[in-house]
Amino acid sequence: MKLAIVEGDGIGKEVIPAAVRVLDALEMDVEKVYLELGYGKWEKTGSAITDQDIEILKSCDCILFGAVTTPPDPNYKSVLLTIRKELDMYANIRPIKPLPCVDCNFEREDFNFVIVRENTEGLYSAIEEIGEDASYTKRIVTRKGSKRIAEYACKLAKSRKNELTIVHKSNVMKSDKLFLDVCRETASEHEVEYSDELVDSMAYKLMVSPEKFDVIVTTNLFGDILSDMSGALVGGLGLLPSANIGTEHAFFEPVHGSAPDIAGEGIANPIAAILSLKMLLEWHGDIMQAGLVEEALESSLNMGVTTPDLGGSFTTEEVTEAIVEHIEIK
Amino acid sequence: MKLAIVEGDGIGKEVIPAAVRVLDALEMDVEKVYLELGYGKWEKTGSAITDQDIEILKSCDCILFGAVTTPPDPNYKSVLLTIRKELDMYANIRPIKPLPCVDCNFEREDFNFVIVRENTEGLYSAIEEIGEDASYTKRIVTRKGSKRIAEYACKLAKSRKNELTIVHKSNVMKSDKLFLDVCRETASEHEVEYSDELVDSMAYKLMVSPEKFDVIVTTNLFGDILSDMSGALVGGLGLLPSANIGTEHAFFEPVHGSAPDIAGEGIANPIAAILSLKMLLEWHGDIMQAGLVEEALESSLNMGVTTPDLGGSFTTEEVTEAIVEHIEIK
Ligand SMILES: CC(C)[C@H](C(=O)O)[C@@H](O)C(=O)O
Ligand SMILES: CC(C)[C@H](C(=O)O)[C@@H](O)C(=O)O
Repeated sequence: MKLAIVEGDGIGKEVIPAAVRVLDALEMDVEKVYLELGYGKWEKTGSAITDQDIEILKSCDCILFGAVTTPPDPNYKSVLLTIRKELDMYANIRPIKPLPCVDCNFEREDFNFVIVRENTEGLYSAIEEIGEDASYTKRIVTRKGSKRIAEYACKLAKSRKNELTIVHKSNVMKSDKLFLDVCRETASEHEVEYSDELVDSMAYKLMVSPEKFDVIVTTNLFGDILSDMSGALVGGLGLLPSANIGTEHAFFEPVHGSAPDIAGEGIANPIAAILSLKMLLEWHGDIMQAGLVEEALESSLNMGVTTPDLGGSFTTEEVTEAIVEHIEIK
Repeated sequence: MKLAIVEGDGIGKEVIPAAVRVLDALEMDVEKVYLELGYGKWEKTGSAITDQDIEILKSCDCILFGAVTTPPDPNYKSVLLTIRKELDMYANIRPIKPLPCVDCNFEREDFNFVIVRENTEGLYSAIEEIGEDASYTKRIVTRKGSKRIAEYACKLAKSRKNELTIVHKSNVMKSDKLFLDVCRETASEHEVEYSDELVDSMAYKLMVSPEKFDVIVTTNLFGDILSDMSGALVGGLGLLPSANIGTEHAFFEPVHGSAPDIAGEGIANPIAAILSLKMLLEWHGDIMQAGLVEEALESSLNMGVTTPDLGGSFTTEEVTEAIVEHIEIK
């Protein structure tokens, strides 16, 4: 496996080394390619990501990515959006399930769902008309784009409880009818049980009965909102991993950002980055290793070895070492 | 006050009579104009709302509205969207605060915030291109539309904690920069303290720390999603009232729908409709009466007189009578 590693900015520089330490402990055959991208690079060189960087990323099988800081400067090109676009990463996958011993301010039954977010269209079209008195954004739904995300979601559903929830707003936007219809057709073809929900109602239902859902498929911005919101169900955004899947490449990153407020203190929670590594291993077919990472992570949680955001008093490094030790014993 | 009363479909026919019973107990000088609108009317006459209905609504000061059922038929014209448009109801106001003795599956500090949703633009433009292979919706942000909702939100903030949170997605949509800028300018003019949040991050923060917010201003669909989601914080969508405010008219309705599954059983929770009446009274300047309604409602909750959705065994009528009795004693 040829792996691109991008720490990025802020706590990216802390949680990615932690994930790499865990990867090293697995003693796999990995060629690592380090790249600097993000705000730090922009300050030094005037660009956050170059065409050459894109070429290097394309030459790798997959990418492990930390977080980047995005300045308010309107000329700054988003690193994340650039990579998603250039590498045609059409599926954004966000699994949401509780971790052992992690409190959150919710009482709820056990749940385990995955948000499959279309990652290339919708309101992320970048087709805009900007004016003094009025500005417009073109929201795009295509049959092709809807079809490939629906296929992805259905295949995932078949490997799970075979249940798909299609989230849309077709009572207001007729354009979402195309998305809904294509998802329904695809689910029928794959013999996946499906139902659909309006995005507003879904936001409510996910918060009150997350246990009712298995695989959720939706358009770009709705997936963005619903997945961040779901961080509340597991006790923090700092715990959610994600994968961006393309036709040829895949990109793994924690959902959290670069957290400049705690960067450099050595207390960032590495769990989301390590769970992102776990998704990477699964994607690559290294199921046993992925299982080992999850087990090691759960064991460290069960022993109470946690960073301050989870009420613990351990550092990023100490949490990582506890996980690594568990892997090395096995 | 000339008041249009629209029960609509399903439990609208149960909760609106309850709210009217409470209004009657206040012995105010109200001219009531009953109108039939919605799916029931559509089945009988082929239209859910006519031009003549619109004229009648326009001749009234305000509207108390239940809920309507929207069939999946693409030719069906949404009653709600028609009224909002025809009566230029640009502000959708949704106050969210916990009710006494109502459990929800959240542990959280006391909170009290209001979502001020722009109600005429954004993705509700109805400007769409619908095709076999691709469909588009034009998302609209205008200076004028942003200005009037920002003004409304700032005035509301001044009557409360003077804190405004502007919710947008301008890191992805440059069009939202217009909304953000106009809201910031307006807040400065009114000397309201403000900050801004990306909609994804806001969805998370509202769920984990609702007590941090006072007045929230946002675009149409974001307001739709955030307000339904907030139903989870108060123990149910069945408890949230809303107001649609126009330049000349105002329209009050529970956030919940027509709930065909429980319609006709006499067990619908009338609280959201009665709280909508309370908002109507406030809007009309009947502050004392509004206070009395709230007090009566809280006293019935404190006595445990609740419908099954809140764990009680009382009917819509019994809950209403408990509230009315409290008003009559005063
Ligand atoms: C940083 C931002 C452009 C991005 C998005 O909106 O997709 C982020 O919120 C995410 O969900 O990965
Ligand atoms: C019924 C629907 C058109 C409406 C909306 O999307 O505005 C509803 O969800 C609401 O929030 O009032």
